[in-house]
Amino acid sequence: MAEAPIGSLPLPPQTAAKLTPAEKYELVTQNLNEVLGGEQLKTILEERDLVAYWGTAPTGRPHLGYFVPLAKIADFLTAGVEVKVLLADVHAFLDNLKAPIELVAARVEYYRLLITAVFRSLHLPLHLLNFVVGSSYQYGADYNLDKYKLSAITSEHDARKAGAEVVKQVSSPLLSGLLYPLLQALDEEYLKVDFQFGGVDQRKIFTYAEAYLPKIGYTKRSHLMNQMVPGLSGGKMSSSDPNSKIDFLDPPSVVKSKIQKAHCAPGEVDGNGVLAFIRHVVVPIGELMKGQGRSSERIWAGEPDAVFTVKGDPKHGGAVAHFKTVEDLEAAYARGDVHPGDLKAAVVAAINALLAPIQAEFNGSDAFKAAEQKAYPPEVKPAAKKKEKKYTPKPEHLKTPEEKARDAAKAAADAVKAGLDETAKMAQAVAEEVTKA
Amino acid sequence: MAEAPIGSLPLPPQTAAKLTPAEKYELVTQNLNEVLGGEQLKTILEERDLVAYWGTAPTGRPHLGYFVPLAKIADFLTAGVEVKVLLADVHAFLDNLKAPIELVAARVEYYRLLITAVFRSLHLPLHLLNFVVGSSYQYGADYNLDKYKLSAITSEHDARKAGAEVVKQVSSPLLSGLLYPLLQALDEEYLKVDFQFGGVDQRKIFTYAEAYLPKIGYTKRSHLMNQMVPGLSGGKMSSSDPNSKIDFLDPPSVVKSKIQKAHCAPGEVDGNGVLAFIRHVVVPIGELMKGQGRSSERIWAGEPDAVFTVKGDPKHGGAVAHFKTVEDLEAAYARGDVHPGDLKAAVVAAINALLAPIQAEFNGSDAFKAAEQKAYPPEVKPAAKKKEKKYTPKPEHLKTPEEKARDAAKAAADAVKAGLDETAKMAQAVAEEVTKA
Repeated sequence: MAEAPIGSLPLPPQTAAKLTPAEKYELVTQNLNEVLGGEQLKTILEERDLVAYWGTAPTGRPHLGYFVPLAKIADFLTAGVEVKVLLADVHAFLDNLKAPIELVAARVEYYRLLITAVFRSLHLPLHLLNFVVGSSYQYGADYNLDKYKLSAITSEHDARKAGAEVVKQVSSPLLSGLLYPLLQALDEEYLKVDFQFGGVDQRKIFTYAEAYLPKIGYTKRSHLMNQMVPGLSGGKMSSSDPNSKIDFLDPPSVVKSKIQKAHCAPGEVDGNGVLAFIRHVVVPIGELMKGQGRSSERIWAGEPDAVFTVKGDPKHGGAVAHFKTVEDLEAAYARGDVHPGDLKAAVVAAINALLAPIQAEFNGSDAFKAAEQKAYPPEVKPAAKKKEKKYTPKPEHLKTPEEKARDAAKAAADAVKAGLDETAKMAQAVAEEVTKA
Repeated sequence: MAEAPIGSLPLPPQTAAKLTPAEKYELVTQNLNEVLGGEQLKTILEERDLVAYWGTAPTGRPHLGYFVPLAKIADFLTAGVEVKVLLADVHAFLDNLKAPIELVAARVEYYRLLITAVFRSLHLPLHLLNFVVGSSYQYGADYNLDKYKLSAITSEHDARKAGAEVVKQVSSPLLSGLLYPLLQALDEEYLKVDFQFGGVDQRKIFTYAEAYLPKIGYTKRSHLMNQMVPGLSGGKMSSSDPNSKIDFLDPPSVVKSKIQKAHCAPGEVDGNGVLAFIRHVVVPIGELMKGQGRSSERIWAGEPDAVFTVKGDPKHGGAVAHFKTVEDLEAAYARGDVHPGDLKAAVVAAINALLAPIQAEFNGSDAFKAAEQKAYPPEVKPAAKKKEKKYTPKPEHLKTPEEKARDAAKAAADAVKAGLDETAKMAQAVAEEVTKA
């Protein structure tokens, strides 16, 4: 499916009830890289609303990259789609075999609270959002019989091929990686969905599901794919580079610092993570807010008909440029009409505006804070321990607020690094949506 | 472990209660090809009796080859070992994906009745024999979590290597075949056994279990291995050759006919299926009967201190030779002192003597007969249908009893052939114990 021109889309209606099936289909499929089985969805939409599934393994801390699929899921919810978020704890446990299962349960809870907070910050209909914990059905007899059935008709070659872009390819893969496509296919049946949503890197797993579910008597599902989006710092996400990721709980000063260090070459649009974030997160969320009658809250849009506004720093000329479409912004950036520093400043403001209500919810909720502490206790910092051997850290009471913030960001990044196992592919796939060059 | 001289073993005591731990260990490990973890078993025997597991997938009809592991299991029972027979219906279902699950359930029942009848015919303590159906725990949450754990630490390469002699090796194996060693390892833990028993072809799966169970926190079990025994017709069992297999329900005339066709070259001991059957089934069972005070029932032993007796046909000289050990018999055969025809006649008598009480139990039990009918309904004869295209079969009422018996044997063989899927490896592994050259 061709990429829709984001900035020129009609305003999304305030409620799905007012949408025609065709409008719902348009909203569900806009801004995607590819749709498999679209006709099937259109047929269903004539009868009833859709049910979808998006999966994430609660391993490392969810970072800003999650905004990309979540911004797209906002379209689904607006279009009346019931969205099942699979919190894949079984996979997460496998990824961290030595971690106590209690930690994974805590991470399930943190992911649930965080994703809910994100959707709440977007004023989305939460009654259409359902969280399903993988272990609630992935240990069941029926599921396992079906997994055995699939394993008896799936060759190692085909399983490896299906997981080629999601599961790390080594000369002799682990069986867990080979089972991955089977589990993901079965999830569609057990979650009783009409389509699965994921990054285009999931394509081979999706086509595996389309080919194999019917072989064991189940319906072939549709598949909607996001394109891969580069990281904020440009290029592929690196868990060893804390600047490539911004945590949902990073304070404004840390966000500013990370974006300032981000790679954003003058005139370069392709692989520019800052522009990609504007296209795939900031502008779609702005359009959503417009549809919700909240245009004035779009602090990154200085005019009612702008999708993004860049204010020049006085040292860059001080001009204010309003862009009506992302294409306009990208063209202007390509011509050199937009200074990278000004673009970054506008993005910092946008990110902090997006994070503010989420962090407010976090700070106002003892349960949320407790879940975060339980999910990512200070112990899970092997990298930090290594560092301690090399230098004597500044005593905590002597640190400046800036240093404390930086250390917190570093610790968060280290926690992610520690948590990210090689096989933590579901989480990584999501992360890659904002990072792949 | 070196092969024990069967004929020279002391008489097994009548009850395990009278045996010392050392005597129990000797009985448990006699006549095996290899014992892994024997010291561990000796230690346990100082404290309590052992618990063992032997698995079989209820697919095709159990044939005389099953007597080999069952004769060895008789030693276990005599030594007070609690023996768990795993009726692996999950595997069987996978083997016959298109067969209704009800058929597999019926086969589980037939296997259970048949194996019980065999042990009853041997006057063995049935209270020590427990049947466990695979599906009773292999779909459970704990089992599956453990399977996921193993799959996350087992490479495709190691899984393939572990199953090399049991799972059919193709360029791209099915995932079910790769999962095989994992399931078999976990069975040891879930059946709570001290050792697993199987053919020496299981060695790599056994060493996989020894290496991997401790990695997920479970005890390393001991492994007792039978040597591989050639088929009655010599060489490897072929499911397309009905003469290579004798069904437990074959009438005496069919047994005679099949043995008469069996390959049994004069003077050849190696790969001689008839001699192998005497060594691994007839003589051990005879020794067992002696221990039970039933020497007179050993119709294949014409003297109290003989393990086997061959009566010469008048046209072969008519001499009667009593052998006190299997080694004596084999040596005489190698020298040409025993005529193959005479050996076969003696084996036919022995087999029919072994089968008689089992067939009597079958014929006297409507439940047993019903189970057999349900497990192997006439529909499961695709090979027979093919034949019908090529010739017009003799009307049933015109057939001689001999022809009816032959057809019944053929139909049984065809049913086995139809039931034996490429992945029906557990059953095949057992079958190979009497057939591998």
